[in-house]
Amino acid sequence: MSFKGEQHPGVKTPTAHTDGFRLNHTMLRVKDPEVALAFYTRVFGMRVLRRLDFEEMRFSLYFLGHPETDEQVPDDQGERTAWTFGQLGLLELTHNWGTEDKADFAYHDGNAEPQGFGHICFSVPDLEAAEAWFDANQVEFIKRSDQGKMKNVVFVKDVDGYWIEVVQADLMAAPGD
Amino acid sequence: MSFKGEQHPGVKTPTAHTDGFRLNHTMLRVKDPEVALAFYTRVFGMRVLRRLDFEEMRFSLYFLGHPETDEQVPDDQGERTAWTFGQLGLLELTHNWGTEDKADFAYHDGNAEPQGFGHICFSVPDLEAAEAWFDANQVEFIKRSDQGKMKNVVFVKDVDGYWIEVVQADLMAAPGD
Repeated sequence: MSFKGEQHPGVKTPTAHTDGFRLNHTMLRVKDPEVALAFYTRVFGMRVLRRLDFEEMRFSLYFLGHPETDEQVPDDQGERTAWTFGQLGLLELTHNWGTEDKADFAYHDGNAEPQGFGHICFSVPDLEAAEAWFDANQVEFIKRSDQGKMKNVVFVKDVDGYWIEVVQADLMAAPGD
Repeated sequence: MSFKGEQHPGVKTPTAHTDGFRLNHTMLRVKDPEVALAFYTRVFGMRVLRRLDFEEMRFSLYFLGHPETDEQVPDDQGERTAWTFGQLGLLELTHNWGTEDKADFAYHDGNAEPQGFGHICFSVPDLEAAEAWFDANQVEFIKRSDQGKMKNVVFVKDVDGYWIEVVQADLMAAPGD
């Protein structure tokens, strides 16, 4: 099937069965929520839209996003939960209680073997300013924008070691063409 | 810091340094793009917004999303790439050429050990209809909406074994309260 003149192997044309489907969130497990929340709120400007605690199963979920305004986020917790699950492009951080106290505990980033998940990616309005901001916050770089074959693409690590790509949309004209 | 009356460990109030940051995409490696693209376009209604081929490094990237209309997606490939990187909540599938021909090759889902990445999540307008749609397409369930402790939460596997959560936003009032 063709979409905008491009042909790709296997692609089907969506049907009415999938109307209204949207990619709500991606879930990553984090060792210490205090450290991870500090990182994603300060360095990437995210807000905790909703937190859900499951005492019996001893874990907590934190849903983070970039709401346009505070006012659009409902005050009522039930309404806010429903609103959160209707959003697009959120990050869910899962904390299994107690991992933060284990000195040698670490999650797997998916890029070392065995591979699978690769990264999350943020787009930013000004990549150069973002790089300076990461330096000011002692963020660990995997690759700066002027390094490697893919110019204008930055990779950093989050505090659990997960890879984060950072791009400026209008600099991405056609890196593969 | 408080946002909507909630306190969470470590949370900082975002500054102007992160204005305009948005979560553009999540990247998963897939063994066979023909199989993975058929799955995400047919079963989850996604469109391939942009494909980038890197011949020298022998991999291809497929960026998938749910555009509101075909018309909002630019025809020009360079413009479409920039548009794609400005979107929210996309899925990037990476195909390292040749993996589809290796009988025993499989990616790691992040839920078996070593753990890290957990899942992606789609919200849908009608969870019961979505379950019937998954059955009609022979999708493998991990958990149906009426199973387990978390009612109204469905988990299925994609064709590489990655976990996909499926929820209906207005049924998620407050599962953890």
